[in-house]
Amino acid sequence: MNDTIRSQLHHRSIREFTETPLTDEQLDTLKRVANQTATSNGQQQSSILRITDSKLKEKIAAVCNQKYVGYAPELWIFLVDNYRNSRIAREADLVLDSERDMDRFMQGFTDAVLNAQNVSVAAESMGLGTVFLGSILNDAQAIVDILELPELVFPAVGLLIGNPNQEPQLKPRMPIDSRFFENHYEVPANYHEALKEYDKEMQTYYDLRNANRRVDSFTDQVVGKLQNPIEKRGRILDVVKEQGYHL
Amino acid sequence: MNDTIRSQLHHRSIREFTETPLTDEQLDTLKRVANQTATSNGQQQSSILRITDSKLKEKIAAVCNQKYVGYAPELWIFLVDNYRNSRIAREADLVLDSERDMDRFMQGFTDAVLNAQNVSVAAESMGLGTVFLGSILNDAQAIVDILELPELVFPAVGLLIGNPNQEPQLKPRMPIDSRFFENHYEVPANYHEALKEYDKEMQTYYDLRNANRRVDSFTDQVVGKLQNPIEKRGRILDVVKEQGYHL
Repeated sequence: MNDTIRSQLHHRSIREFTETPLTDEQLDTLKRVANQTATSNGQQQSSILRITDSKLKEKIAAVCNQKYVGYAPELWIFLVDNYRNSRIAREADLVLDSERDMDRFMQGFTDAVLNAQNVSVAAESMGLGTVFLGSILNDAQAIVDILELPELVFPAVGLLIGNPNQEPQLKPRMPIDSRFFENHYEVPANYHEALKEYDKEMQTYYDLRNANRRVDSFTDQVVGKLQNPIEKRGRILDVVKEQGYHL
Repeated sequence: MNDTIRSQLHHRSIREFTETPLTDEQLDTLKRVANQTATSNGQQQSSILRITDSKLKEKIAAVCNQKYVGYAPELWIFLVDNYRNSRIAREADLVLDSERDMDRFMQGFTDAVLNAQNVSVAAESMGLGTVFLGSILNDAQAIVDILELPELVFPAVGLLIGNPNQEPQLKPRMPIDSRFFENHYEVPANYHEALKEYDKEMQTYYDLRNANRRVDSFTDQVVGKLQNPIEKRGRILDVVKEQGYHL
């Protein structure tokens, strides 16, 4: 097993960091990795916003409802970005409907997420820790407003990066056979039965965010999440539309 | 610079592979990496379909409009998958609207793309080559039909993996400063001017798919793509809706 794989198999979310900032060399390396990431059709329809302003960080932390977001060493927001290419066309005197279609949006979203994962792997390979912030979408409109994003720009996912100051357990995953199929999607007779051992294993996991109690079984977590949807998250397309896309 | 970063900075799409299949050990490693990838809220709302059936491969290649898709050693389709969790809730006698909301869809899409990038990095670290297939979305409904995907399952991105049989140039990227900003999104006075050197650099790049001629400048490529949208790709949300999601 090579070092890359070893590091990937050791992935855990890190939410507590030392105060040591990233070195200029580390930052430069992560930026280079980000830029070399695969991109749909070579169109580079994503951008990155690095947040260093503590007031902006606090506002984003409030949307995420996660205090640690406010004082992590690095906070990067990966953006769907079709503004740049739309302006390139306009400079050529072309205003094209296609700049607003959902194909461009999904391509940009894909680019942004590929980018975030690539940066995370690179950071972890250097001994840094990361955590993805899907929580920026708790209120996508608020993030758009806080960051003053132009039209056709949309926040896809956030990432915290820093030197780890905690050593969390690996979080158990369902057996790969429950989510990796050959040629045909497979449905078990009963999911609770198929995931029984995994449910037990999950209950042996301690989440450092709630260190005093064991976590629920996976199937109970699934039901709990479905019973408690966050209304604004469900209406994400309203904000996509507000940013100028034609659904 | 460590081996992981070196490999990431050397990323190129590989579209021609030797006939040597992946070893069982390589396959097993890639599956393990896929499964350990970060997942939104721990909900594991994505799955992978490995396509080995040559008839299915040919049909997918036709949608992609890329012949090499049909004979690559490994073809993996990364899926948004909220079917599994919806069934877990139903087994607990709960049929919840939230199983169909766009928050779940975007979480699943994010999971699937994180997964694809992580697998690609792992494969490249082992000396394999990969190429992402955004082209499966040329006709998302056709892919849904070919793979007989259940409701709430949706193809996010494909990936070919194999032993490289070509040595493409690195494809130039725009200067990172054009897409990496601090605190505020930056707009240059003129994009063509800001990307002038990059436009020249791009014209020195030879795409092996059209080895006989230089490629267009980046800004010309952008305009060309915007002038020639693929209609079905723009209507991707129709298929998302067809798969049972509430937009």
